[in-house]
Amino acid sequence: MTSALLKQRRHKDYGFHLEYRTRWSDNDMYDHMNNSVYSFLFDSIINAYLIERCRLHPPTSPQIGLVIRSNADYFRPVGFPSIVDLGLRVNKLGKSSVTYEVGVFERGDEKISAVGGYTHVFVERETNRPAATGMPEEIRRGLEKISLDEKPKL
Amino acid sequence: MTSALLKQRRHKDYGFHLEYRTRWSDNDMYDHMNNSVYSFLFDSIINAYLIERCRLHPPTSPQIGLVIRSNADYFRPVGFPSIVDLGLRVNKLGKSSVTYEVGVFERGDEKISAVGGYTHVFVERETNRPAATGMPEEIRRGLEKISLDEKPKL
Amino acid sequence: MTSALLKQRRHKDYGFHLEYRTRWSDNDMYDHMNNSVYSFLFDSIINAYLIERCRLHPPTSPQIGLVIRSNADYFRPVGFPSIVDLGLRVNKLGKSSVTYEVGVFERGDEKISAVGGYTHVFVERETNRPAATGMPEEIRRGLEKISLDEKPKL
Amino acid sequence: MTSALLKQRRHKDYGFHLEYRTRWSDNDMYDHMNNSVYSFLFDSIINAYLIERCRLHPPTSPQIGLVIRSNADYFRPVGFPSIVDLGLRVNKLGKSSVTYEVGVFERGDEKISAVGGYTHVFVERETNRPAATGMPEEIRRGLEKISLDEKPKL
Repeated sequence: MTSALLKQRRHKDYGFHLEYRTRWSDNDMYDHMNNSVYSFLFDSIINAYLIERCRLHPPTSPQIGLVIRSNADYFRPVGFPSIVDLGLRVNKLGKSSVTYEVGVFERGDEKISAVGGYTHVFVERETNRPAATGMPEEIRRGLEKISLDEKPKL
Repeated sequence: MTSALLKQRRHKDYGFHLEYRTRWSDNDMYDHMNNSVYSFLFDSIINAYLIERCRLHPPTSPQIGLVIRSNADYFRPVGFPSIVDLGLRVNKLGKSSVTYEVGVFERGDEKISAVGGYTHVFVERETNRPAATGMPEEIRRGLEKISLDEKPKL
Repeated sequence: MTSALLKQRRHKDYGFHLEYRTRWSDNDMYDHMNNSVYSFLFDSIINAYLIERCRLHPPTSPQIGLVIRSNADYFRPVGFPSIVDLGLRVNKLGKSSVTYEVGVFERGDEKISAVGGYTHVFVERETNRPAATGMPEEIRRGLEKISLDEKPKL
Repeated sequence: MTSALLKQRRHKDYGFHLEYRTRWSDNDMYDHMNNSVYSFLFDSIINAYLIERCRLHPPTSPQIGLVIRSNADYFRPVGFPSIVDLGLRVNKLGKSSVTYEVGVFERGDEKISAVGGYTHVFVERETNRPAATGMPEEIRRGLEKISLDEKPKL
């Protein structure tokens, strides 16, 4: 998707939200949040959703998600001590893979600050390969709830 | 102060509180928050207090705080995706220096998880040395509000 | 560029190299380096090159680089306590912008572990807008040395 | 130990050394390494030593080290893109616990920049309690090699 389109995203375009308080160490020498820190935030809302809504249990679940590709666009700087509102959606849901999009908003600000995400492939913990049956049913059902993918490949 | 005494700390022993959502990357291989991450949380609540309650403005303030000594005690593990409640107090307020203590509680848990903090010396940005007049008055007044130091050296 | 092509990258495809020791906190619960940590490594080699080879001085330089877009592909996991060899190249050099690519290799391993990078727009520190004359000449000359862009837009 | 004594530490006072390249994100708004980052470096050299010299294998070892107390003194700022030389020693070796000290030197600088460390208690992974027989023999033997504790409590 083009940057110009992503810049139009608003809160309502995302199905799951969490607020995160920024940390002092998030800011770099230029006094705004280091662009690398956005990746930590993407990772945090995605894994919080998987754990709390899809029953993923990282230390023991038979399948785990491997990140294979990530990307981000940065529109407006954010900085400590701001609070950011993260929004999560699923843009593409395959048999074993899922592509997430996360929007970052400064609390109280309608315009989006950054948008990004990544693609997870769910693999069996023992073999590091996708299961013949695809991702676990509970995870699929959880991801479908925030999916904007019109025709999921079931 | 001994670990045994610090372990008795409760929410009410701190004058300023902020909640922080943990991040996926905070957990280490043992599935609990890496002990080093506590330092980032201490730094965050202390600087949030200085910025929001004491008018410190990191990019331009004539004096800045240098950390000269830090310490922490860890009692009970915390882990992503928990939310932690941080409490801040000032244990010692000198002419140019201040010693903070931060308590870390898992939200909804009365027992303290960890306690630590550090000593700031306020120095002039240009010279890196304490001002003859000590720390700025606005900062001192802000710090006194959460000070448990019975006889501040004014 | 497609993932399949990027997966063919080798050390010699990059003009500048630095080795980085991984840190304990880089590993996540799955005992390999958290994908977000790669962004920190990209940022580190890019800024090291700008500071050491292009005379960027972050606290005072009249122009600074803003990251507007980033991306990464992950092929093979790396983990603490490995040492990684980073390679840097410039894929596109415009009047005020530059697109970097960073390859990540585990030391002693010819196959690439991950590849990614970002686009910097150089802006005037005071206005946050590109200068009419483009990026500083010293930075351009430094970037040209590792540029694979056949026809730089001068 | 007092700060004044620790400030006298030199390279030769440490039995194991590793060099770490600093990262862009290590610097804070004041253009020097954030004090919290030192904890990550302490953690890194200590765990590297345990893994490479004491055969600790974090994902499977029957005993793991829990950090119960940490501290640090900061003498001279360090900043990206410097390389730091870390030195490790053991100050106290008990039946199940060990207290490490780490010195941080800027490469090529004889004067110490910071010193700190922490106390590990080795516990059984399953019970989270120290083993009746104390820490594993291989770990003890490894730690004794860098121990300055004159009378180890065997």
